[in-house]
Amino acid sequence: MNQPPFATPAEAETAFYEAIERGDLDALMAVWCTHEEVVCIHPGGSRLDGYDVIREGWRVILSQGRLQFRLSDVKAFEGMLYAVHTLCEWVSEAGNPQAATPVFATNAYLLTDHGWRMVLHHASAAPQGAVADVEARDPNALLH
Amino acid sequence: MNQPPFATPAEAETAFYEAIERGDLDALMAVWCTHEEVVCIHPGGSRLDGYDVIREGWRVILSQGRLQFRLSDVKAFEGMLYAVHTLCEWVSEAGNPQAATPVFATNAYLLTDHGWRMVLHHASAAPQGAVADVEARDPNALLH
Repeated sequence: MNQPPFATPAEAETAFYEAIERGDLDALMAVWCTHEEVVCIHPGGSRLDGYDVIREGWRVILSQGRLQFRLSDVKAFEGMLYAVHTLCEWVSEAGNPQAATPVFATNAYLLTDHGWRMVLHHASAAPQGAVADVEARDPNALLH
Repeated sequence: MNQPPFATPAEAETAFYEAIERGDLDALMAVWCTHEEVVCIHPGGSRLDGYDVIREGWRVILSQGRLQFRLSDVKAFEGMLYAVHTLCEWVSEAGNPQAATPVFATNAYLLTDHGWRMVLHHASAAPQGAVADVEARDPNALLH
């Protein structure tokens, strides 16, 4: 289990999805940069601006039941101080990974005094069939 | 009218939206980085990977009629070499700005040998009512 401070954007990203899967709000919010400029957009939802508003949004989501993620199609733009990842999340209720829904996500990270932190999560529903299911292509490309 | 090379991410972004409004595919694609790692997600669409695929996607969109944009709620994460902007696009058919639809967009830019270029555009439909219409709040916050 990854703990902050995160030495790489990839460590922060793994901690982000693992925290959601565990339903661990504190661990999830430890990935986020704490300043007020951070932004989070959930699929079909309003834009959440600022750390406290984002925390409340995740609290509600995590209270609705356990989620499971598989990640595919990761592309990374990275420099010394920034990272922008765009990827496909295959989201399902825990224990039912066959019924996964594809979601496009863009995650941005900055290197802060406290290691790599997320500053932006933009997620939106992907059309069914738009992405070949990762499991059919590469059974090893799973979060777990 | 902004021309490449763009000296700032803001110049590139203005050129991006102005090119869409003019239906000018060449000017639009001059904003994009030409390498194969670039990514574009249109609202409700598949993810388009690579310059040529992205160009074809925009060609189809631009062939369907003129669009008009107003931009609001811009937040920028910027460093010497990168910029990530998240904003709300109010998209309407040209001449009918009252019927604008809100779209959340994340635009990422990198400083290349040819000035600032777009490497990622992730756009997704915003729920109606999720964003107060910019025109009601700030009539000066328009692209034009």
